[in-house]
Amino acid sequence: MASAKNVLFLMFDQLRWDYLSCYGHPHLKTPNIDKLAARGVQFDRAYIQAPICGASRMSTYTGRYANSHGATWNRIPLKVGEPTMGDHLRKAGMECWLVGKTHMQADTEGLERLGISPDSVVGSRIAECGFDVFERDDGMRPQGPDGFYDEGGAVAYNAYLNERGYSGDNPWHDYANSGIDEDGNVESAWFLANSSKTANIAEEDSETPYMMRRGMAFMEQAKGPWCCHLSLIKPHWPYIAPAPYADMFGPQDIVPVVRTQDEFDNAHPILKACMSNKLGTSFSREDVRLAVIPAYMGLIKQIDDQVGVLVKWLEDTGRMDDTMIVLTSDHGDYLGDHWLGEKQFLYDTSTRVPLIVYDPSPEADATRGTISDALVESIDLPATFLDVAGGEALPHILEGQSLLPILHGQATETTRDYVICEYDYAATQLGVHLNVSITEAYMVMLATKDWKLMHFGGGFRPMLFDLRNDPNELVDLAEDPTHAATLDQMYVHLNAWYRRPSRRTTISHRDFEVMRSSSSGTGVVLGVVEQGDIEPEVVQHYINRKARPWQDIVKDRS
Amino acid sequence: MASAKNVLFLMFDQLRWDYLSCYGHPHLKTPNIDKLAARGVQFDRAYIQAPICGASRMSTYTGRYANSHGATWNRIPLKVGEPTMGDHLRKAGMECWLVGKTHMQADTEGLERLGISPDSVVGSRIAECGFDVFERDDGMRPQGPDGFYDEGGAVAYNAYLNERGYSGDNPWHDYANSGIDEDGNVESAWFLANSSKTANIAEEDSETPYMMRRGMAFMEQAKGPWCCHLSLIKPHWPYIAPAPYADMFGPQDIVPVVRTQDEFDNAHPILKACMSNKLGTSFSREDVRLAVIPAYMGLIKQIDDQVGVLVKWLEDTGRMDDTMIVLTSDHGDYLGDHWLGEKQFLYDTSTRVPLIVYDPSPEADATRGTISDALVESIDLPATFLDVAGGEALPHILEGQSLLPILHGQATETTRDYVICEYDYAATQLGVHLNVSITEAYMVMLATKDWKLMHFGGGFRPMLFDLRNDPNELVDLAEDPTHAATLDQMYVHLNAWYRRPSRRTTISHRDFEVMRSSSSGTGVVLGVVEQGDIEPEVVQHYINRKARPWQDIVKDRS
Repeated sequence: MASAKNVLFLMFDQLRWDYLSCYGHPHLKTPNIDKLAARGVQFDRAYIQAPICGASRMSTYTGRYANSHGATWNRIPLKVGEPTMGDHLRKAGMECWLVGKTHMQADTEGLERLGISPDSVVGSRIAECGFDVFERDDGMRPQGPDGFYDEGGAVAYNAYLNERGYSGDNPWHDYANSGIDEDGNVESAWFLANSSKTANIAEEDSETPYMMRRGMAFMEQAKGPWCCHLSLIKPHWPYIAPAPYADMFGPQDIVPVVRTQDEFDNAHPILKACMSNKLGTSFSREDVRLAVIPAYMGLIKQIDDQVGVLVKWLEDTGRMDDTMIVLTSDHGDYLGDHWLGEKQFLYDTSTRVPLIVYDPSPEADATRGTISDALVESIDLPATFLDVAGGEALPHILEGQSLLPILHGQATETTRDYVICEYDYAATQLGVHLNVSITEAYMVMLATKDWKLMHFGGGFRPMLFDLRNDPNELVDLAEDPTHAATLDQMYVHLNAWYRRPSRRTTISHRDFEVMRSSSSGTGVVLGVVEQGDIEPEVVQHYINRKARPWQDIVKDRS
Repeated sequence: MASAKNVLFLMFDQLRWDYLSCYGHPHLKTPNIDKLAARGVQFDRAYIQAPICGASRMSTYTGRYANSHGATWNRIPLKVGEPTMGDHLRKAGMECWLVGKTHMQADTEGLERLGISPDSVVGSRIAECGFDVFERDDGMRPQGPDGFYDEGGAVAYNAYLNERGYSGDNPWHDYANSGIDEDGNVESAWFLANSSKTANIAEEDSETPYMMRRGMAFMEQAKGPWCCHLSLIKPHWPYIAPAPYADMFGPQDIVPVVRTQDEFDNAHPILKACMSNKLGTSFSREDVRLAVIPAYMGLIKQIDDQVGVLVKWLEDTGRMDDTMIVLTSDHGDYLGDHWLGEKQFLYDTSTRVPLIVYDPSPEADATRGTISDALVESIDLPATFLDVAGGEALPHILEGQSLLPILHGQATETTRDYVICEYDYAATQLGVHLNVSITEAYMVMLATKDWKLMHFGGGFRPMLFDLRNDPNELVDLAEDPTHAATLDQMYVHLNAWYRRPSRRTTISHRDFEVMRSSSSGTGVVLGVVEQGDIEPEVVQHYINRKARPWQDIVKDRS
């Protein structure tokens, strides 16, 4: 359908949808990303399926809701046997490579049960969420009394930094994610007060340009057709930008915080708990926002410049002609909006992401520079890539849908009436604080174009927002009797969604069509009283057969 | 907890719960099964999770609802990666062997994707639903224009029959499941009119005694601890019994059909479609019931005698002292009740099964001979067996619960408020007839002790039955406004059930407890503004570190 041969699937981590100028940020100009949008389609209503890195990505990479794949929080292994976009693309003749972050946790117990070595090709693909790995870097090398968060975090990048003269056991921390004072003391950006400092690293050695170069290095040697998941960690925390980006933005560039006192005073109990934890209280502080947001904006400005470098390189090497480019994020960042920090709640601030798709195909010419308000989900990407690869659609496995019809001007909407985003907080202190059991500690969002429902496990009341008239989601209408019918209707959708047969993945819809239309081809004939009741070609297997009386057979034996 | 060392897990196929005298059949005396019940606990409210062989068994063997494992109809492959009771028991030091039927369909595509040969030990276990195979026999060798239904069906049994002098390519059909006329013509029991005939086989060579002997042969050589799934095909169709069982029952022994004219005239559209297809119309005929039911009863009488043989052998060999015996079925059979044939609807007739558990442990002495009305599901069996094996409970994977507390008199109820049974008819002509899509062609039953809800996909109205006052489920109350609150409450249960996090199987509840209670042990510190905001043992990883200014490093490089 598309004439794109390859797919460059760019993901930035924790990039808010509204912190790009094409999506409306008034002070943060991102001309390179805007230009890419002008050459493709900008999706304005794109949602991720879980507002946390690991779960969001597992949905994107499997094309399935968190509720279907089960890896519902960070570092919950994606279970062996869950097929991924890598599996589907390779089957359709397209390689699928990783350069950067996935947040995949291998299901070592499952691998062991199946006797699969993680070092084998198959085992490595399972352990790496279906990707072949050019370079994996989850962009994180925190360390605490129990050791490193991730033994494999930023290993190649740290080696690169060492080679470039940034010494020590963790230059990722000491240089790329810290400032330095005049006495040579590392000022760690794990402390938000240090986010206003300048990262102690040459800009070209910082994470975004480094990983962009790794992406280009991959493409330079790749034969194709390929899908390259170039997956960059920034603007994810630790928040600190290198020069010159560290000083580009100041208080005057920060958009007003989105929150009301009433929202705080009358908050839903789970929301209140989120507002009241360390994240909520820290990011509600003006000094924290003043330290963090300019750094966050600087990191995005750097990203934009690097997208410029990348696109220029793609142009110079002729790759813009045969490469689809997708630019998106895995979730947003509250930055104090709604009195929250980080991303763990269900407002658009964290559940909506930028999504820009450039398709080189002539079929896509009609839609270049358009903005689509179709309801799109990140799980649509594997279906889209599979469509590019010419593979057969797999609606029994992939819960998303190809965006090519929209990109090619054949459709203006997806076929869905709503988007879904789920958050499982069973593994968090929020669950403890609220005294919610491990099986009830979940929240789920269902959003149509007009309304958003948030449903909470554990017996909490729901929340309801009027997205048309209250796009900032400041007024919860769930208990307003004038909206009772809307609330009911949203629950009708939610219940229908939960009942979808999403675990029935081993048989295609086409096979079902064959099964349901076929008769007794293999001789199972039910409710047939006499031989005249069925087709002669079936009945012939059961008639005109001869046997000996069993008594004679027994007699012969003795 | 139990002193049982081994588990003998007996399953009969399509055995109605109410066709045993201990469950109340007035004319079909089953003294051997009754005796076993008198030595154990008879569960009166035991439900299977899908009223069709394959899906029901996949639930029983995985300990998970059909909605969780996805193998929702016959011959839908159980996907690679779904752990089974064999996996859990082996891990706990108990072998898990199959003698007989599973209706497992291997996920060959998944095996191929993982590079696992079905001939390897691991591959064979995956292909065989987690069992090591002593003898597999799904008890079915139908044949039609497209070939055999199951190339592997009854292979060993057919070879046995050939060896015993029953010649031909399919003695399973020609002898074990057919009669013979005076001219030596095979009278196939695929035709219900022939069910009144006598199977042309010596009783000892028929399927039930054969497979019982295979079970004993397994146990004779087994070292243990083992779980042996001895899984017999009868009284499943083709309905025909050998002498002397063929002539044991007549019209006077048939209990009255359970149906009303009103039920037929005002049937729910899906029910009406089931009543109106070949199965419904055939089994609604008096001549068919008169031909089939005595054969069905004869097959059960034979089963009972064989259970007597088996128990005698277990006693004589000392195995009653260390072996738990479980006797159950995979679903019932309508036999014309509710104007239906076969098993594909959600009345108790097909969803409720006999379940008798004999536990040799002294702890079980207090409950011997008791009848439990606890709400029990077939998915409780793997959890029970794992408990016997001394394995750790796996509530993140197994959706059932151990019955040992009930068997040992420590509890009288399970912890559930309702049982669930699902039927997916996407693969059937019923779906075509009703014009219901492949993703909407499902029905689900939720039953408390008092009420039963049947919910149907595709926009059909629900059904509701008062099980206390209408145990035969003859009066649908779903549209009766006096029961609107009950209907609502049943839907509250159903929606809660669908929202359970059943796909999150790669992380234990214990691991979650650790995760949710732990703090920043691996250095991820969020919302921390200054170093004084966190514990010194964490902060020490980020302070008192030295670095060189990046400008100096760059200067050194040049």
